[in-house]
Amino acid sequence: MRIGVLTSGGDCPGLNAVIRSVVHRAVGDHGDEVVGFHDGWRGLLEGDHRPLDLDAVAHILAAGGTILGSSRVRPEQLRDGVERAREHLARLRLDAVIPIGGEGTLKAARLLSDAGLPVVGVPKTIDNDIAATDATFGFDTAVGVATEALDRLKTTAESHQRVLIVEVMGRHTGWIALHAGMAAGAHAIVVPERPFDVDELTAVVGKRFEAGKRFAIVVVAEGAKPREGSMPFETGGTDVYGHERFAGVARQLAVELERRLGKEARPVILGHVQRGGTPTAYDRVLATRFGRHAVEAAHRGEFGMMTALRGTEITLVPLAEAVARLKTVPDERYAESECVL
Amino acid sequence: MRIGVLTSGGDCPGLNAVIRSVVHRAVGDHGDEVVGFHDGWRGLLEGDHRPLDLDAVAHILAAGGTILGSSRVRPEQLRDGVERAREHLARLRLDAVIPIGGEGTLKAARLLSDAGLPVVGVPKTIDNDIAATDATFGFDTAVGVATEALDRLKTTAESHQRVLIVEVMGRHTGWIALHAGMAAGAHAIVVPERPFDVDELTAVVGKRFEAGKRFAIVVVAEGAKPREGSMPFETGGTDVYGHERFAGVARQLAVELERRLGKEARPVILGHVQRGGTPTAYDRVLATRFGRHAVEAAHRGEFGMMTALRGTEITLVPLAEAVARLKTVPDERYAESECVL
Amino acid sequence: MRIGVLTSGGDCPGLNAVIRSVVHRAVGDHGDEVVGFHDGWRGLLEGDHRPLDLDAVAHILAAGGTILGSSRVRPEQLRDGVERAREHLARLRLDAVIPIGGEGTLKAARLLSDAGLPVVGVPKTIDNDIAATDATFGFDTAVGVATEALDRLKTTAESHQRVLIVEVMGRHTGWIALHAGMAAGAHAIVVPERPFDVDELTAVVGKRFEAGKRFAIVVVAEGAKPREGSMPFETGGTDVYGHERFAGVARQLAVELERRLGKEARPVILGHVQRGGTPTAYDRVLATRFGRHAVEAAHRGEFGMMTALRGTEITLVPLAEAVARLKTVPDERYAESECVL
Amino acid sequence: MRIGVLTSGGDCPGLNAVIRSVVHRAVGDHGDEVVGFHDGWRGLLEGDHRPLDLDAVAHILAAGGTILGSSRVRPEQLRDGVERAREHLARLRLDAVIPIGGEGTLKAARLLSDAGLPVVGVPKTIDNDIAATDATFGFDTAVGVATEALDRLKTTAESHQRVLIVEVMGRHTGWIALHAGMAAGAHAIVVPERPFDVDELTAVVGKRFEAGKRFAIVVVAEGAKPREGSMPFETGGTDVYGHERFAGVARQLAVELERRLGKEARPVILGHVQRGGTPTAYDRVLATRFGRHAVEAAHRGEFGMMTALRGTEITLVPLAEAVARLKTVPDERYAESECVL
Repeated sequence: MRIGVLTSGGDCPGLNAVIRSVVHRAVGDHGDEVVGFHDGWRGLLEGDHRPLDLDAVAHILAAGGTILGSSRVRPEQLRDGVERAREHLARLRLDAVIPIGGEGTLKAARLLSDAGLPVVGVPKTIDNDIAATDATFGFDTAVGVATEALDRLKTTAESHQRVLIVEVMGRHTGWIALHAGMAAGAHAIVVPERPFDVDELTAVVGKRFEAGKRFAIVVVAEGAKPREGSMPFETGGTDVYGHERFAGVARQLAVELERRLGKEARPVILGHVQRGGTPTAYDRVLATRFGRHAVEAAHRGEFGMMTALRGTEITLVPLAEAVARLKTVPDERYAESECVL
Repeated sequence: MRIGVLTSGGDCPGLNAVIRSVVHRAVGDHGDEVVGFHDGWRGLLEGDHRPLDLDAVAHILAAGGTILGSSRVRPEQLRDGVERAREHLARLRLDAVIPIGGEGTLKAARLLSDAGLPVVGVPKTIDNDIAATDATFGFDTAVGVATEALDRLKTTAESHQRVLIVEVMGRHTGWIALHAGMAAGAHAIVVPERPFDVDELTAVVGKRFEAGKRFAIVVVAEGAKPREGSMPFETGGTDVYGHERFAGVARQLAVELERRLGKEARPVILGHVQRGGTPTAYDRVLATRFGRHAVEAAHRGEFGMMTALRGTEITLVPLAEAVARLKTVPDERYAESECVL
Repeated sequence: MRIGVLTSGGDCPGLNAVIRSVVHRAVGDHGDEVVGFHDGWRGLLEGDHRPLDLDAVAHILAAGGTILGSSRVRPEQLRDGVERAREHLARLRLDAVIPIGGEGTLKAARLLSDAGLPVVGVPKTIDNDIAATDATFGFDTAVGVATEALDRLKTTAESHQRVLIVEVMGRHTGWIALHAGMAAGAHAIVVPERPFDVDELTAVVGKRFEAGKRFAIVVVAEGAKPREGSMPFETGGTDVYGHERFAGVARQLAVELERRLGKEARPVILGHVQRGGTPTAYDRVLATRFGRHAVEAAHRGEFGMMTALRGTEITLVPLAEAVARLKTVPDERYAESECVL
Repeated sequence: MRIGVLTSGGDCPGLNAVIRSVVHRAVGDHGDEVVGFHDGWRGLLEGDHRPLDLDAVAHILAAGGTILGSSRVRPEQLRDGVERAREHLARLRLDAVIPIGGEGTLKAARLLSDAGLPVVGVPKTIDNDIAATDATFGFDTAVGVATEALDRLKTTAESHQRVLIVEVMGRHTGWIALHAGMAAGAHAIVVPERPFDVDELTAVVGKRFEAGKRFAIVVVAEGAKPREGSMPFETGGTDVYGHERFAGVARQLAVELERRLGKEARPVILGHVQRGGTPTAYDRVLATRFGRHAVEAAHRGEFGMMTALRGTEITLVPLAEAVARLKTVPDERYAESECVL
């Protein structure tokens, strides 16, 4: 069998572990040939690729980033490119292609699959917002990095007697905010799923100070927004890919809380550091399992599917289902944080 | 409501997070009173306890160990102590007791529950070997510590051109060996579930050297044993609690592999470092959820149950089910490691 | 002997280790009594204190922050407070006071010493900018945190094909930028000691892209400034303590580099995370040694001095010398980074 | 100029950083050519080498191990090999050779230098026992790994109410034991420089238990020995290189302390994990500086020298001085640990 693999979208710890696992299973066990497309969909659309043998994936299991590169492609570029993709697959005599990527990539994968191309997707998002799988690799690492930062920031907030508003990743969902906030014992957690009332938030933080505490940590997902009219708020607009731009919610919230509480409040934006570098053991194992099962699906001819974790097992779910809806933080999970706003 | 809590058995990252969560939910939200028994079952049998308010659990979320202490108690001590436990619960006017512990503790919990005491268990094992739950806190931390050690050892094995036999925890099951081995890219993984054939293992490692590689990492669970007759092997006997003693499998294996391969082979025993210290974010979140749900179960009067993770949800399972059987590494999971012996 | 201790200024990993060491040496070895003043100089000026015995400093060696709290005090407040400080020392029958703090604190310490009070200072700055000592605790931790972040950011910059401008602490000196940049292999390092020419910086980064590299990491100290006229630049002004405000150099530089290079450039501001949390082993050892030697100096009556590291030895230097000049990055050290602008 | 480089002896975090720095400075700045010898002295004696250009050292700054490999060579092999080394240098037209290694390597370097070969040494030892330099890279990483392990072990020792005897590296000197023990707050530190009296050690640990503490951590360097007659003790003999073998002091001490104290005592041997993996920022900076200065020395023709850290500066010291004596832990430094036996 000949298999193509590509990585698309933002950086995510575990991408290399998936690539390695695909090659180990396909080349090492099945005697397949594997090629890697460069820079995600661009490589597939332009036929830009290189062969991947066992040596090519030595030493990459624990490495962040992706040895294949990545890039963002606008949906319409891909729609127009289906035929070109088909030609390149034919020319390269590929029997299957395994795209590893987030929501946009999986939608593109479905497009190709609907056009009859032999696709098995591997979901990738540090945001953990794909409903069809219990977990995605990268999320655990992102939460770990954010938690370690929060552990450090707590002592500084306390020494300086400040409110720290710590912005973590999550444009549409608050999973990183929820988990890192719970893991670090944040005093308030603000998620995109629930527009926050700044009066309530002020009250929560204010109560801590009244009780004699001298600092507070508020974790806020970058996509969180105030309830309309609750406070002045500038949105960030959208970029050329149609994605919402960063609005700087922590910065805006820090100004507002400082004004209302009369306490020093400072924003801390963790940023890209959450999505790079060596993956946790959890993410390496999950990524390795995803890669292996994607190859197995290809060998069984189960195309149009995506690997998924359900409980402790890896299963396959239709790509159609995978992108049907976002996995948002439900009220019961948010309640478990004891930080309900 | 008045609730007692205790921690029993070996150290496990996340114990303090459970205690904190129980107190936060019970005292903070429900207005309950909570007491903590000292040193596990000993505290309950002797009525040795202290009140736990919100201040008592400040700053412990990320701390390893247990603020309540722990101890090991022989099963027969507990059997004889049911009536004393009942008296202490009555005297302290406790409406529920939440023991946090491993297989032995959950068996004891069931004993008390069968005797009519109001018990909600919280499972604890770094070994991840309780079948009724998808995961237990402490396991992720143990795997993380072992993986980090393996990452470091790999460079040394390579520089020194050696075979390193790295012994990780797991007396009866190989979960830590499997996950850490997969996460770190071990070349062989030896688990208690499958007595190993030393000829096969020698062949696997030998093939690497023949292929020009200059080192190998073998991960072995402490409870792993050679297939009978496959090599000379001393077992460790049993201790006063009836637990199997440490047999030093890595040490014995290193001698055997060095002799057979003619390559330097060295044992590394990771030991206690896997079960102490600050828990990972994953374990802190799971522990926090377990603590909260145990309190909720007590408030709903659902006794004789244990908290469990199923997929992404916390559920309750009967204590009877919890201890019915060990969760061992199934062949399909072992196969995913590409290290099948 | 009776000794007072206080911590002043911004958070710094190792403060608790000094406090613990002072108490261990004074109380444990000499049989002294120690009191801790709350919130730095404020505590001394108001006589707000508590006794510190051995139990009070258990478990704090590895903890970030300071159990005594800290605060910033304006120089004139202190000048006016010398007599009050003298009264409180007399009332509390203190034979020595050990202030732990940065440049401002050591200046204040000198003021009190010149007024005849028995002071032994312990230098504290994550910036490493005190000339009289080879190193200060906190710096190694800050560099470690920044380096770990840079390690992670490198993979993301590469995957995303971006220029990342990473802003680290250092208002007046570039030590953190220099060390973290060298440790992580940054492609350009910008320090306050050398106003940068944005043309040169653009050329350095541009050359990388011309050579086929697909990303670049620029490390910039928060106090760095462009050579006058080299690019539009807004300064941050000064705050009520007379300290320069944060100018957002990374943000301004990212806009400028993106415009000039036609490559995506993004700022990452590491911020407070560099100055909180558990200290490295290096910082714990240095802090412990400083604490001990400060007590010894007090016992020998060597007042008006500050502890300092010279080579591998702890010595005492006059407070006057300690604050005479800032330790800036000399050209030869900057040259060692291979990132000369 | 043409420069040869080799790494010899045991693994040490920072070796790759030196190699990279040599190549960056020599090839990148001076336009030199650099070759790397494989497996230490073996490569030089056999002329086994490869060219090292800038690409060859990309991505290795933070990597543990050595891309050149290492090996141990008996002193007499080297003595007999001087002429062969001379021939290979001549044949490869090398103007300088930079061996990176420990005491044995530096002695060999001196041998070659005395025979007229153009040698500049770079000292390498995780043990920190070379008197001519304030510090060597690798030591900080080893201490950091040991400290992190001790932090974790403390909670387990406390939960299990045990004495843990933690064995760290250090055959002849106790620097790692001293620093890690101080950083982690060990209750006793045992170093090779001072044969310990087991009665005293028992008294120190016993006193803790009498004072109501429930655990103790003893850090012991692998080369530590009891005062003669103080307890039964098996030594490990010597290996083929004339090095003392591992005696298992922690294991022997645990048995003895358990017997004497009537408390559970367990040995933990940290082992190889201390000498592998990614170096700390401190070690990466020091290694990078050493590499650069070695190249500069070669360009200035300063042969027969070794790079050294003195205070904050890198200097050169004669190889003769470098190996004249071991840097042992002096009594005053040991006293600072508050763990004097």
